[in-house]
Amino acid sequence: MLKVTVWGENVHEQQEPDVAERYPDGMHGAIAAGIKENLGDDVDIRIVTLQDPDHGLTEKVLTETDVLTWWGHTAHEQVSDDVVDRVYRHVLDGMGLIVLHSGHWSKIFTKLMGTSCTLRWRAEHDRELVWTIDPTHPITQGVPSPIVIDEQEMYGEFFDIPAPDELIFISGFSGGEVIRSGCTFRRGYGKIFYFSPGDQDYPVYHHKDIRRVIANGVSWANTLRPERSSPTLLRYDTNDFFNGEDYRGASER
Amino acid sequence: MLKVTVWGENVHEQQEPDVAERYPDGMHGAIAAGIKENLGDDVDIRIVTLQDPDHGLTEKVLTETDVLTWWGHTAHEQVSDDVVDRVYRHVLDGMGLIVLHSGHWSKIFTKLMGTSCTLRWRAEHDRELVWTIDPTHPITQGVPSPIVIDEQEMYGEFFDIPAPDELIFISGFSGGEVIRSGCTFRRGYGKIFYFSPGDQDYPVYHHKDIRRVIANGVSWANTLRPERSSPTLLRYDTNDFFNGEDYRGASER
Amino acid sequence: MLKVTVWGENVHEQQEPDVAERYPDGMHGAIAAGIKENLGDDVDIRIVTLQDPDHGLTEKVLTETDVLTWWGHTAHEQVSDDVVDRVYRHVLDGMGLIVLHSGHWSKIFTKLMGTSCTLRWRAEHDRELVWTIDPTHPITQGVPSPIVIDEQEMYGEFFDIPAPDELIFISGFSGGEVIRSGCTFRRGYGKIFYFSPGDQDYPVYHHKDIRRVIANGVSWANTLRPERSSPTLLRYDTNDFFNGEDYRGASER
Amino acid sequence: MLKVTVWGENVHEQQEPDVAERYPDGMHGAIAAGIKENLGDDVDIRIVTLQDPDHGLTEKVLTETDVLTWWGHTAHEQVSDDVVDRVYRHVLDGMGLIVLHSGHWSKIFTKLMGTSCTLRWRAEHDRELVWTIDPTHPITQGVPSPIVIDEQEMYGEFFDIPAPDELIFISGFSGGEVIRSGCTFRRGYGKIFYFSPGDQDYPVYHHKDIRRVIANGVSWANTLRPERSSPTLLRYDTNDFFNGEDYRGASER
Repeated sequence: MLKVTVWGENVHEQQEPDVAERYPDGMHGAIAAGIKENLGDDVDIRIVTLQDPDHGLTEKVLTETDVLTWWGHTAHEQVSDDVVDRVYRHVLDGMGLIVLHSGHWSKIFTKLMGTSCTLRWRAEHDRELVWTIDPTHPITQGVPSPIVIDEQEMYGEFFDIPAPDELIFISGFSGGEVIRSGCTFRRGYGKIFYFSPGDQDYPVYHHKDIRRVIANGVSWANTLRPERSSPTLLRYDTNDFFNGEDYRGASER
Repeated sequence: MLKVTVWGENVHEQQEPDVAERYPDGMHGAIAAGIKENLGDDVDIRIVTLQDPDHGLTEKVLTETDVLTWWGHTAHEQVSDDVVDRVYRHVLDGMGLIVLHSGHWSKIFTKLMGTSCTLRWRAEHDRELVWTIDPTHPITQGVPSPIVIDEQEMYGEFFDIPAPDELIFISGFSGGEVIRSGCTFRRGYGKIFYFSPGDQDYPVYHHKDIRRVIANGVSWANTLRPERSSPTLLRYDTNDFFNGEDYRGASER
Repeated sequence: MLKVTVWGENVHEQQEPDVAERYPDGMHGAIAAGIKENLGDDVDIRIVTLQDPDHGLTEKVLTETDVLTWWGHTAHEQVSDDVVDRVYRHVLDGMGLIVLHSGHWSKIFTKLMGTSCTLRWRAEHDRELVWTIDPTHPITQGVPSPIVIDEQEMYGEFFDIPAPDELIFISGFSGGEVIRSGCTFRRGYGKIFYFSPGDQDYPVYHHKDIRRVIANGVSWANTLRPERSSPTLLRYDTNDFFNGEDYRGASER
Repeated sequence: MLKVTVWGENVHEQQEPDVAERYPDGMHGAIAAGIKENLGDDVDIRIVTLQDPDHGLTEKVLTETDVLTWWGHTAHEQVSDDVVDRVYRHVLDGMGLIVLHSGHWSKIFTKLMGTSCTLRWRAEHDRELVWTIDPTHPITQGVPSPIVIDEQEMYGEFFDIPAPDELIFISGFSGGEVIRSGCTFRRGYGKIFYFSPGDQDYPVYHHKDIRRVIANGVSWANTLRPERSSPTLLRYDTNDFFNGEDYRGASER
């Protein structure tokens, strides 16, 4: 049973009637429904939002989470640094992370990338075509190439991210812009998938193919390691390869 | 004229007589001499240390720096977060960065990598062989494969870094351990080279080939862009590709 | 049910008594047994060798093969170019391929890599340590890091392969050499895993961990696409993204 | 002095009046002029074509060539396998190679890639925008992002190439398609740059920015190694790292 936590910022939905109408269960609700639609009984989904205590991301919740999905936009700055540090640690320890759309500028994504994660954008009803670049990858299975999104916000290059470990999708927009729209990254023992389609002003999270890709990403990001643990700095004696000693400070001899 | 700033922690040299004897001009002095030895009149070198005001890394100094080299070990925690943020911003804007040996655990390197940058280690006089993995790369020119270092601290995998953009060197130790010892990474408009050989307890920075590699790294990391600038998040009208507007907040329409 | 074909050169086993004693069922037999030991009833294994008609690799056999493993050494030149072309086509169409040890210099591997695939070597009973470089990867699950092989042939860098898509393992030898010993590559719709441990003069294919890695590689290399098909060159009308027309020659207008 | 050989197929120019009018000196002539325009006295250019003896690519010519550029389309099959093998060997030995546009389906490119190099296409006057993906790379210097090509043939994904070592440019077309239009690959000691803009039916090789990119590619692809040599398979004694012995067959002990 894959334990998924869907994190939603839940601000646009509360403040803008058109967003609330488009996403009556919140964007987090639509994202969760799309994962459930594809993974069914293999997945146990919990939804939490910015407004919950600790934004819903307590140590207990994260420990119980195999894969976390992240959608945020207008309130990135309201996310507590302590929570970000906690999520960061869990990713390095092996929790999967799916970062969606405007989550590109979230504290957690920029912290994991080590770059500004800036890009070019325009919300003018561009058509987005999502082209498969790696047809062998688990994340691209079961969707056409291209995925056609009739109306979407444009996100374009230069997208300031590290060169991804795997380039999965590239999107082209009717205005002519392009973006690396599906990218994977490993950090520590954790796997990260960034997927750019999705916006509060367009019904993208109701799109069957987009939902499939997100579900594929969730399945892929789940760690294969038997236990969650932290990468470590240990000293090993000569000919001991398996029993390192804890670090006791940089000046030890 | 390439403007290089060599940053030294300068603590071991002050506290441990054997290190002071091994590196009478400080490790920073040996690193600077190695760069000068190879790049000669093409380079203008400034040396600064942890003990200088702002650790010697003021806005003015960084603006005047094409490439910064970083050696730290026992005092990573004493480096001010403000200075780290300043260096980080300059790297994303195009300043080159060479991170040496124990700098793997520095605040600036872990911030740019987004990982723990932990590894396994042992200071027991291992022989290190530095093997060239990319013989076409500018950084590997002019040195034998392997570079033989008679005595060195062992650094071994698992080294918790993102998969490097380019894997330049792999080292093997007499104890049997291996490490990705030469790696490049792009972050924003900046180029980063991590090179693991070098330690306060061994005369590695007097080694002719190691000095050549560091100098090669400095030449390579220098930005090719005409001006330093920041990656940006801008809005572009349809059919305007060159004159983006500043971002005015996530809720703008 | 995963259909695996184990291809063996089967020459050393016939000509050298010590090899026949070490591998009484042939090296192909040991390789097949190791896959069966780990994948059990999930796998259906067929063994074929160089001496079979068409080397056992007819169109029918390849069509029925999800993943092919390849061990060859002394008789690379005896493998027919027609068979190599056939295997190549099936890999591009989605058949998985596991290339083992001295298979690095096989016709099929060099054809898929586009390089010489040369390396340095020595058969002098080195100890090989196989270090995990990507602990998140399915191929590295269930084995220690390092895997300890008490005696092995040394294979060392510079190994003339393209930079792998994923660097999974690096080996270090008691003599000090290192090699990228576990590497993945995508070609067309096919997935390829090269794994260097294994030799006719050492009992490496009886090693529990090595067998697990090979079995992991077999599972990973199996295509996820529903049908085997060829990458194509097609012409698409404007606004038609899904119904390309066959190519009719470079001079068509 | 960089010695460049520009190879032209020179068939469209001979057979189609509109191509001859568009490219009165041949496409090879325009490509050579663009390199000269940017590199000036630093470069010595030789032009050869398919119709020359040995297609102009004798052992002598290739030995004297630092970087070879390749444009072919309608006559890929007329290129002799012997010449392709010769070029291939020189690339592995360190000769740079720039493959342009329809050269994606040439014998030399598919041999170096190990894939089909197929893609989707349409010659219907699409506008192509060439977006910089790696702003730190020497090949992207001195051109705007995007480069605007008013009319071009469309080349789109899925482009069946190995994941490039560096993804330099992505193009978007007015029809919505995208392609990885600028890619680098290392093979042996050689550096390869594929750049997709350019077609016989459009004046792309007269475009100032396209000419700059090609010239940048030529500069980048020039080997840095002091002499051309082949990757080798050699045996090394224990503790000898520099004096390998020639290979004498797979059965030697």
